[in-house]
Parts: sequence; structure tokens; C-alpha cells
Amino acid sequence: VSTEVDLVPELRVEAGSGSYPVLIELGAVDRVGEWLRQHAGGSKVMVVCDANTAAVAGERVAEAARAEIHTVPPGEQSKDVPHLEELSRAAARAGLDRGSIIVAVGGGVVGDLAGTLAATYLRGVRLVQVPTTLLAMVDSSIGGKVAVNLDEGKNLVGAFKPPQAVFIDPGLLIDLPVREFVSGMAEVIKSGLIADAELCTMLHNARVELQQRRPDVVTDVITRTCAVKVGVVSRDETETGERAILNYGHTFAHALEAASGYSPALTHGEAVSVGMGVAARLGQASGVTPSDVVELQAHLLAAYGLPSRSPVEVATDELIGAMAHDKKARAGEVGWVFLEAVGRASWGHAVAIEHVRDAVETAL
Amino acid sequence: VSTEVDLVPELRVEAGSGSYPVLIELGAVDRVGEWLRQHAGGSKVMVVCDANTAAVAGERVAEAARAEIHTVPPGEQSKDVPHLEELSRAAARAGLDRGSIIVAVGGGVVGDLAGTLAATYLRGVRLVQVPTTLLAMVDSSIGGKVAVNLDEGKNLVGAFKPPQAVFIDPGLLIDLPVREFVSGMAEVIKSGLIADAELCTMLHNARVELQQRRPDVVTDVITRTCAVKVGVVSRDETETGERAILNYGHTFAHALEAASGYSPALTHGEAVSVGMGVAARLGQASGVTPSDVVELQAHLLAAYGLPSRSPVEVATDELIGAMAHDKKARAGEVGWVFLEAVGRASWGHAVAIEHVRDAVETAL
Repeated sequence: VSTEVDLVPELRVEAGSGSYPVLIELGAVDRVGEWLRQHAGGSKVMVVCDANTAAVAGERVAEAARAEIHTVPPGEQSKDVPHLEELSRAAARAGLDRGSIIVAVGGGVVGDLAGTLAATYLRGVRLVQVPTTLLAMVDSSIGGKVAVNLDEGKNLVGAFKPPQAVFIDPGLLIDLPVREFVSGMAEVIKSGLIADAELCTMLHNARVELQQRRPDVVTDVITRTCAVKVGVVSRDETETGERAILNYGHTFAHALEAASGYSPALTHGEAVSVGMGVAARLGQASGVTPSDVVELQAHLLAAYGLPSRSPVEVATDELIGAMAHDKKARAGEVGWVFLEAVGRASWGHAVAIEHVRDAVETAL
Repeated sequence: VSTEVDLVPELRVEAGSGSYPVLIELGAVDRVGEWLRQHAGGSKVMVVCDANTAAVAGERVAEAARAEIHTVPPGEQSKDVPHLEELSRAAARAGLDRGSIIVAVGGGVVGDLAGTLAATYLRGVRLVQVPTTLLAMVDSSIGGKVAVNLDEGKNLVGAFKPPQAVFIDPGLLIDLPVREFVSGMAEVIKSGLIADAELCTMLHNARVELQQRRPDVVTDVITRTCAVKVGVVSRDETETGERAILNYGHTFAHALEAASGYSPALTHGEAVSVGMGVAARLGQASGVTPSDVVELQAHLLAAYGLPSRSPVEVATDELIGAMAHDKKARAGEVGWVFLEAVGRASWGHAVAIEHVRDAVETAL
């Protein structure tokens, strides 16, 4: 742990299950190999990536760390139990032991799959996250939630698995497809809206530089966004309270993704964008969200090319049904997250089903 | 937690990840249903058992708890990743949510499988252990270590998952096959040897009553044995130190089981018995274990029908190789547990490979 100081992390998660640095800097990916060699202590290291992220960063990290590398096919269909077993078997054959480190180099799918592997292989080995997409950088790589899918639903099998360190290299975003960049922006905007008014101002003023992915601006925005998540997760790791605000817009988003059969015509960010619109209208109808906040949110989302209505067709009833099945429901209850102001959210709001139906209909 | 007081547990594990009662009494299995109804809070409960334990206790518990029941085929081959996925899918279809409780009613296989399910389903739901074999009562149901097997080795995918409560009903042992009872006795004797000299005396004096499974004597012996494990686990949950003493005899035992291809001609208790013999001779050769301790151990094991030599044929080289692959090895090192006296053990002893070879040869 003492040697981690050399990372001079900009951020550090301080949660019950452990403390870890989040390093955000251009070229961070080139520091992973050395860090791994310092920390592996003679045990084997395994890099998990997909065919795309292998070329972008995975092979480079594995070579620098003198690590095994295991590549899964790109896409959500790799995030399942059979691939988890395949990786576990590869780890066993490669001789990974309790001192070993699993390194996730990729987007959310790789982070979840490798994270679940690290949580369960030998009842848990160390994990390092090297996110390669904007969405993974500002969201899934921080906080320790990892899971794989079942036929019955997404993220149903997993763990809380805090990593040893997160290495975020904004330079990797240069070649990220526009649609994926925009998808990640939905979580960035969400983070500003729920917890950082100044981030919202920055997003408003620096839109052009950000869309051009100017490295300094992208790094600043990622850092502020990660700071929101780091703060929330440090105060409430396992989502018994405040962490719920990170799900702003997500009750609807998860239901929309499920009801559309996880259509490739709908990114996670698009679903969250539409979901934030629904939550804002419900919050307004409930007297919690002021109308100027609803407008500012709509303006920001539109400015970054994010939709207010679902790009895929879904029946209202199917969507309402999917919302009731959301795994965050505890014994059938759904609590909504609402904005109280720009930069402030509250959670656990109950809404009558007829109001939900009205708001949902305007989004489909 | 406050309502748990009504169990008046004889023992309580106090570990970092949580505190839980271990109730040991005749008829304990008939108290599980009521406890579950009190604690489920409107969420669904799922009982996991195998075809044998369903009849012995599983169906009774499920009915009393108004719970779902899921039965897997008896035997080690059910303890794998595909069965874990099958159970996870059954839990999802049955509508288990974050407030749900998984109940393991069975031996070590069911406890491990259901425990891994509870550790990973929705990133963790509550677990209750209702062990039905002597081995599971005194060993696997306490301490939170759960795992399933891969083709590459046993217990390679799992978690530390402390249960909410352990219900031990010695009455269930009346119908346990003799060979399984004797297998469990190896862990009982081990517990006395490493941490409770008085338990060794009791085992020596009450041999006949115990072999007749007199309920009061069985209950006393289980309670003392569980107390050893509860104490050790409370002081060192994740096996960074003292918990290693519970592995007395197990370095060899695991290797013997692996090298014999997990032959049904070798029970876990028999493997542990032979392994304790090997460890005693190594401890004696290393000047740690006094010769009278070696003799007392041999006498106790023989008195309960446990072997000093492997009942299956295994080549020495294969066994030495399997020992080096033991998953407890960290970066290749194997630390041995030795007895210092009756009721006292120490761990982390290094032994030269030629001495290991000599001791192993006398056991094969």
C-alpha cells in the first residue's frame, strides 16, 4: 500500500472494504505495467480484454507487466457465466494464485467480467481497472460493482469488488467512436446534475472543446465526474443510502433497455438520457424539481446529442412491467431519484403508478 | 439482529464481515422455518438441497418457511459453475430480490453451492446454513468459505460468505451412513488436537457412546468442535494467519484427494486422517511435535476407524506434484501446520522436499 503513493492519485476512494487510488492522466496506461510488476510479488498477472481493447491498450499493458493475456469477443454477449467459467479455467491453467492480480483493460463489459472473475477466483484475488471508454472511465470502473448477465436479466450474478487501483488515460478516448463518446457523456451530465453544479457550467461552456476531445478539457471533465462518484461511493459503498442518487434516470433506463431487448439501436447513455427526462418530469410533477432545472437538463442533454425520447419503439405496458422487475426493487418497491436543484438530488421518492405512466408515455 | 437473540445461540462467530449465531440443539431444524418467516421481510426464500437432504430436512424447512425449493443431484459433480448458473436462473425466475434469503440444507456440496449462489446472486443476498452431515456441522457450515469446482481443481471459484445463522441439529445424524459419520470424526479429532485438549479426552473416554450416536454426547462433541472453529474464524476470518491451523493434515489430504482423482474409495475424513499422520511425522522430524502427541493422535484416529495409510493407491511423485499445486500455495510456497502439544498447533513450517517425500512414502 505504501508504494501506491508514487501514483500521486488525483482521487482516492475511501470505502469500508478498502481504499484505492484513481489515477487520471494522459499516458496513465503506460504506467500500469510498472505498477503491476511492483505489486505482483512473484505471482502471475492476467490481463483480460476484448479483441478491440487488446489492440488499443491490452497487449501493451500485458507486455509491460509480463502478464498473461486473455481476450474475449467484444460485446455484451461475453458478459455471461460461461465466459466467467472460461476465464476462471484459464486463470487456473496459467497458475494464478492468491497473490495474483487480474487487470481489466476495456469498457464496461470487460470490467464487469474481469471484476467478477477477480471477486470469485480463489475466493478473491486483486483487481486493477484500466477503463478504455468514457462510460467505463467515469462510471463502471469506480465503485466496485461487478456482475455478469443471465438469460433472465442483466447483472444478476456478481459482487462488490473494489479494485486495487484505477488507471484512467483520457488519451485512449481519441479513437473512441462518437456514439460511444456521446453515450458516456450522459453519465457525465448526470453526475453534474446530481452533485456538481460547477461541472454543469463547465459542460455548458466547454461543449465545443469537449466534443473535439481536447485532452486537457476531457481530463478536467473526467476528473470532476469521477470525483462525484468517488465521493458518493466513499460515503455509501453498498448502496444502502446515498449511492442511490447515482441511479438518477436509471430506473427508467434499465427498463427501457430490457423492454427493447437490449437493442444495439439504443446505447446505455441514450437510455439514461431519456430516463433523466422522465425523472425530471416526475420530479416536477411531485413538486421536488424546479422547472428551470428541468429546462437546463433538457438543454444540456440536447447540446451533446442525447435524446429526450426513446430511439427504439417500446410499448408503455412492457416498460412499466420491466420497471417493476428492476433488480433494485426490494420486495416490490421502486424508489425514484429526483433533482432538487442543479447539483443536488434526493432519493426514495414514491410515485403513483398513473403519474409514472403519464411521464413514460411522453418519452416513448 | 435483535430478534436473533431468541435463538439463545450456544456459539456466535464474531468476524470482521459480520456476527452470526450457531445454534446447536436437538430439533434445531424445526426452528428454521419460523426464523426465516421472521427475517425474510416479505422477500422470497429459496431452500437449496439435494435429493437425499430434501427428504431428510429440506422439504420440511421449505414448507415451514413457505419457501421455494430447488434440488440438485447428490454428489460432488453438482458443485460446479453450470449448477451455480442453473440455481441463479431459478432464483431470478422465482423472483428472489435483495432482501431474499438462500437456505442451504445439506452436506458440504450443498453448502458450498448454495453459499456461492448467495454470495453472487444480485451481488449477494443473505444465507442460512442448515448442515445435515457431521462434516458440514463441524466444519464447512461455519466460517463462510464457499466455492465450486472447475475441471482444473476443487473450490477454485467462490467467496467468503458468512451466513446469517447456522442451525445444527444433531438429531439429523441418526440416519447418516457410518462411513460419512466416521469421515466427519476426522475433523472432530483434528479440532481437539489443534486447539482443545479436553475434547481429546472426551473423545477418548466417550468413544462407545459417540459411535452409538447418543444424542447428548453427539451434541456435546459437536458443540466443542464448533467452538474451536468459531474461535479461530472469529480471530482470523480470511486466513491470513491463525486460521491456517484448521488446515492441519489438509496439505497432504487435498493432494491425496486430487492425485486419486477424487475417488469414492477415499472420503475427505480418511484423507485428512492420513494427512494428519504425515504432518505428525514431519512435525516430529522437525523437532516440533513430541512423540507422545504423535502416538495419542494415532491412537485416537484408529479408535474411530480412521486410516493411517491411504486406502487408495497413488504414486509418490504424483502426490508431491499435487501438493505443489495446492491453491493455498502463494507464489509456490507450502507452509505446514504442526502440533506442538495436544490442543496446540503452529503454522507456516517449512520442510525440505526430501523429508516430505519420506513421510509421504510411509503413508501410501
